[in-house]
Amino acid sequence: MEQITAGVVGYGYWGPNIVRNFSEIDSVALKYICDLNPEHLNRHKNRYPAVRFTPDYQELLDDKSLDAIAIATPVSSHYALAKQALLAGKHVLIAKPMCKSSSECEELVAIAEEMKLTLMVDHTFVYHGPVRLMKQLISAGELGDLLYLSSVRVNLGIFQSDVNVIWDLGAHDFSIMDYLLGNKMPTALHAIGKSHTDTNFEDVVFLTLEFEDNFIAHFHVSWLSPVKIRQMLIGGTQKMLMFDDHRPIEKVCLYDKGIELSKPPQTERERYRALIQYRNGDMRAPVYDLTEALKFETLHFIDCIKNNKTPITDGRSGLRVVRLLELADASIKSRTVLPVNVGR
Amino acid sequence: MEQITAGVVGYGYWGPNIVRNFSEIDSVALKYICDLNPEHLNRHKNRYPAVRFTPDYQELLDDKSLDAIAIATPVSSHYALAKQALLAGKHVLIAKPMCKSSSECEELVAIAEEMKLTLMVDHTFVYHGPVRLMKQLISAGELGDLLYLSSVRVNLGIFQSDVNVIWDLGAHDFSIMDYLLGNKMPTALHAIGKSHTDTNFEDVVFLTLEFEDNFIAHFHVSWLSPVKIRQMLIGGTQKMLMFDDHRPIEKVCLYDKGIELSKPPQTERERYRALIQYRNGDMRAPVYDLTEALKFETLHFIDCIKNNKTPITDGRSGLRVVRLLELADASIKSRTVLPVNVGR
Amino acid sequence: MEQITAGVVGYGYWGPNIVRNFSEIDSVALKYICDLNPEHLNRHKNRYPAVRFTPDYQELLDDKSLDAIAIATPVSSHYALAKQALLAGKHVLIAKPMCKSSSECEELVAIAEEMKLTLMVDHTFVYHGPVRLMKQLISAGELGDLLYLSSVRVNLGIFQSDVNVIWDLGAHDFSIMDYLLGNKMPTALHAIGKSHTDTNFEDVVFLTLEFEDNFIAHFHVSWLSPVKIRQMLIGGTQKMLMFDDHRPIEKVCLYDKGIELSKPPQTERERYRALIQYRNGDMRAPVYDLTEALKFETLHFIDCIKNNKTPITDGRSGLRVVRLLELADASIKSRTVLPVNVGR
Amino acid sequence: MEQITAGVVGYGYWGPNIVRNFSEIDSVALKYICDLNPEHLNRHKNRYPAVRFTPDYQELLDDKSLDAIAIATPVSSHYALAKQALLAGKHVLIAKPMCKSSSECEELVAIAEEMKLTLMVDHTFVYHGPVRLMKQLISAGELGDLLYLSSVRVNLGIFQSDVNVIWDLGAHDFSIMDYLLGNKMPTALHAIGKSHTDTNFEDVVFLTLEFEDNFIAHFHVSWLSPVKIRQMLIGGTQKMLMFDDHRPIEKVCLYDKGIELSKPPQTERERYRALIQYRNGDMRAPVYDLTEALKFETLHFIDCIKNNKTPITDGRSGLRVVRLLELADASIKSRTVLPVNVGR
Repeated sequence: MEQITAGVVGYGYWGPNIVRNFSEIDSVALKYICDLNPEHLNRHKNRYPAVRFTPDYQELLDDKSLDAIAIATPVSSHYALAKQALLAGKHVLIAKPMCKSSSECEELVAIAEEMKLTLMVDHTFVYHGPVRLMKQLISAGELGDLLYLSSVRVNLGIFQSDVNVIWDLGAHDFSIMDYLLGNKMPTALHAIGKSHTDTNFEDVVFLTLEFEDNFIAHFHVSWLSPVKIRQMLIGGTQKMLMFDDHRPIEKVCLYDKGIELSKPPQTERERYRALIQYRNGDMRAPVYDLTEALKFETLHFIDCIKNNKTPITDGRSGLRVVRLLELADASIKSRTVLPVNVGR
Repeated sequence: MEQITAGVVGYGYWGPNIVRNFSEIDSVALKYICDLNPEHLNRHKNRYPAVRFTPDYQELLDDKSLDAIAIATPVSSHYALAKQALLAGKHVLIAKPMCKSSSECEELVAIAEEMKLTLMVDHTFVYHGPVRLMKQLISAGELGDLLYLSSVRVNLGIFQSDVNVIWDLGAHDFSIMDYLLGNKMPTALHAIGKSHTDTNFEDVVFLTLEFEDNFIAHFHVSWLSPVKIRQMLIGGTQKMLMFDDHRPIEKVCLYDKGIELSKPPQTERERYRALIQYRNGDMRAPVYDLTEALKFETLHFIDCIKNNKTPITDGRSGLRVVRLLELADASIKSRTVLPVNVGR
Repeated sequence: MEQITAGVVGYGYWGPNIVRNFSEIDSVALKYICDLNPEHLNRHKNRYPAVRFTPDYQELLDDKSLDAIAIATPVSSHYALAKQALLAGKHVLIAKPMCKSSSECEELVAIAEEMKLTLMVDHTFVYHGPVRLMKQLISAGELGDLLYLSSVRVNLGIFQSDVNVIWDLGAHDFSIMDYLLGNKMPTALHAIGKSHTDTNFEDVVFLTLEFEDNFIAHFHVSWLSPVKIRQMLIGGTQKMLMFDDHRPIEKVCLYDKGIELSKPPQTERERYRALIQYRNGDMRAPVYDLTEALKFETLHFIDCIKNNKTPITDGRSGLRVVRLLELADASIKSRTVLPVNVGR
Repeated sequence: MEQITAGVVGYGYWGPNIVRNFSEIDSVALKYICDLNPEHLNRHKNRYPAVRFTPDYQELLDDKSLDAIAIATPVSSHYALAKQALLAGKHVLIAKPMCKSSSECEELVAIAEEMKLTLMVDHTFVYHGPVRLMKQLISAGELGDLLYLSSVRVNLGIFQSDVNVIWDLGAHDFSIMDYLLGNKMPTALHAIGKSHTDTNFEDVVFLTLEFEDNFIAHFHVSWLSPVKIRQMLIGGTQKMLMFDDHRPIEKVCLYDKGIELSKPPQTERERYRALIQYRNGDMRAPVYDLTEALKFETLHFIDCIKNNKTPITDGRSGLRVVRLLELADASIKSRTVLPVNVGR
């Protein structure tokens, strides 16, 4: 089959990474780089001589030969740009988070389904080798029934100018969780956050999700940590794992550890014995695919377009993530536990 | 001055450590080891030939020459044993948590004050070299105004038979926080916890404390983690620190890092520039006292008795910790944010 | 069978550890603690009320009921004390290194064999859980043919007053190597060392051992390192391992990694292709026995006495270690590579 | 001043990095990329549309407008290519190691000096931020008098097709040492190496350098380690440091640690006291420049050309490194300690 013709709108921080990956994939013909900011647009013209650099998004929409558009602009513009693209018949890849509200996401999902177009959200971490390894381990039942997920994603900045830390860093964690847990859906959310600057955007947030079956997930995100931490613990009835993305190697460690409950004490005397038995077995750090996540993802995007597949991070997964982000904001403001229904 | 004559009640898991420290301090004459469990009582008789081993607590109460009693029994018995000791005129050191309710704590505090006796809670970590170093750094203003404290204290077990994980592990964190923050007091508490066994005692708890001045503290405690983590991050306007107690050395790292807010954007164009400036300076791992925490603490207990000083971890600090533990339980059950007033 | 009656001579730094272990083993009746230094001898009399504390070694030799003597004195006295003990019919455990010369070791070995007495050297690390795990992995063939062993054992001090760093720290490594390699024996030794103090005892030594079959072993020992490092790498044709004794857990990591040689290049063009294929599989950190090494060792000593077994670290292994230590000194002084024949 | 016009010969593994840096520096006009291998030459033509890709080195030599040539070919061709370039009046940057023999290096140095051309060796690590920090700390006297340097640089592969591991990895360490030590020059060298493949190129080498003043340097390089280690310890009379290049941050740790010798013992009794006093102060991890080493280096190359400066890694430093590499090979083959005179 022939090449997919693609354009990228938004050439600031993240756009160049998508451009580089599109340019290195044989099945993609990169045709446009579009940005309103002249400084952004004037970069790298020598590097991509075959690409048209333009500040005019309409050019992309009007080009009948253009198959797909990747959107890497600030989140506030995602909805309008994506809607125009879909209505112009283009397949769309949107940077995370998908939109600034769930209603915007819903509308995009509906349009894409009606138009039978691929709508995919650039939740890059879902395509990261260690995350795909975790998915395989969980799907294969190595962990048994899942008990909890606990994540820490903190560092010093970068402060965003238009969203708080949960929309920035938390979006990564929610997309990873959405991928790993599959059908397991949260039923309640509680978040507490603080802003330590004049921006009023929270820079530290602690967030808990409860699930029907006693599973619990917790997220600590911060732009105010002196050290960079990227750790996720997942406990199961059979095994437990730690994902530490800040390590250079062996990012996923699988522990053959767990607990087994003894019978409840029958007598007062028995109250003093250990009720819980521990299992302490080997630790194993399995190998994982070292392919750059964004490369794996762009190949998946092209594959979905060509073969009419549903992306792993389709519009509906992007919508579920945004629903959680909205609820996080609402919980921080209302200081209450909120019920959750992210849908499917 | 002469020796303080002391007895220890409770010779199970923790009692032997107190006994060993009393026996190694010249200013203490250890006279009694008391335990109801014959298995406990029959240990180490050869090791301490000058000590009387007895199952009868009344012997200690009746001995007019006995100055002080250390209580290392399960928490449910703390109140009764301590009250008897105080009423018999003995100075008292109680293992943490102080009692199983704040009203019990209040009564003990009142009796001790009326009797002019030393009442101290064995919050051992407060006397740990790295924790005392943190206190010095904070008191000296090295961190500037405090912004947040975030703590993770997780491992696999040991499941207690009579309390949940927040009364076990969280009590350590609350006592450290109480010591480090001084007059800064929490105003609201939210906790979520889950029990993954039949015991109904929570084994995983996430807890947040809010303070008047935007300071926030968060605690993650768990008996269900495959890895042991003992990390505390404290951020300030000047510097930030990390306390990692699982490292063999350099447990406290002080980072000359922080943020400085630029003026708010005046124009649309300025919205795209970085609002926040980062400061990235050296990291320093100061030396700290390597004395065993419990040794430092028992010396402090004796010093308070002899010189009529108020212990760092006096009954009131123990009471504040128990108030937070009670509220944690109440918040978990009610699924709400609760107001906090721990008193002074 | 009844208890073994034992005495310990040398109650300074290491002796108390042997005493503690003897006192905790049911099959041992500890009868004597002997030391010439009154300060040493006056410690812990209350802790071991049933033991006779004496400065007179002859008492131990004359006591017909005494079965075994453990020697924990400075190395210069090992030979004389051990010889007297053996000639008095006592089984002997000697702290490492065995003696200050190989000829002394040879004489002790000969006497012990003639007297049919157990002569064991206290090479404690051989009985350390992680080291026994490595032995099992190597013996089971998991590593394939061994290619190299590389060890780093460095820290700041403790400077010994009578030996250099290779007799202190290197003795540990040689005993571990002797245990792990079994019949594989070195054929050449080269050592370079420097003294940075007035004592003329080397505080930094680099030492290499060559073996018949291309295997190579290297040791870096130092009293002058700002950080404590305890690392040993062992490479095999099938797998490789790292032993890091400074980690709190997972001290032995087994890597399913290796190389496979391609056919040599046939053409000039082929010279540019990769000649070597790499295999990168999982890492596994197997569980190991957490028993204190010295406890495992003292139980083994008693077992050898009672059941007439040859100790893992018998006199001959102690002799092999001392021969290497002697050659290390000789190589440092002569600045040459020396042939090695440690015997069996 | 105007731009320096430059060409790069060798576009395999390392050449593209030089090309990328030249292309990103305003003061350089990259004109040629030259490689005999068509596969190499056909890469990235779109990325650098203004650059001429040619297999014909003579084109570069004949171009009078070309100021400088960077050589990134296999080491065996360095001498011939560099000599032609210098004789054609071009400034030259040569990848490390400089040549395959010291006599080749000497000839290039002589030609460059006669022609008054810049001859620089691409010892990239010398320009690495943490290495420059170490140089500053040492030059400022923070470490006091230097006592030792000990380096470990091991990983799994990459096996070179034409040199052994000391010419590959060791060249990095020698250039760092040459930079850090300044006038301190080695007087003796000993190396032991083994080849575990059919190539006869050593894959594991242990090498020691002795210096006039008791300073000692040691290098462990290997292509056969399951883990990647990049550690350098440097001890001084005042402070000591550890450089760990495998860490993501805080690569240089400065320890306020050391020893101080007591007076020698005057009596037999004093022999038992500690002769050495330890100093244990804070650890500090200073910030360092995060600029990519090769970028800093290419800017330095251009600066030397424009302003007629002597490069930090000039031809003479490249020559000193190659002399050590030659001696390493000779020591391995002769199994002896060899005298060293690397010149200045």
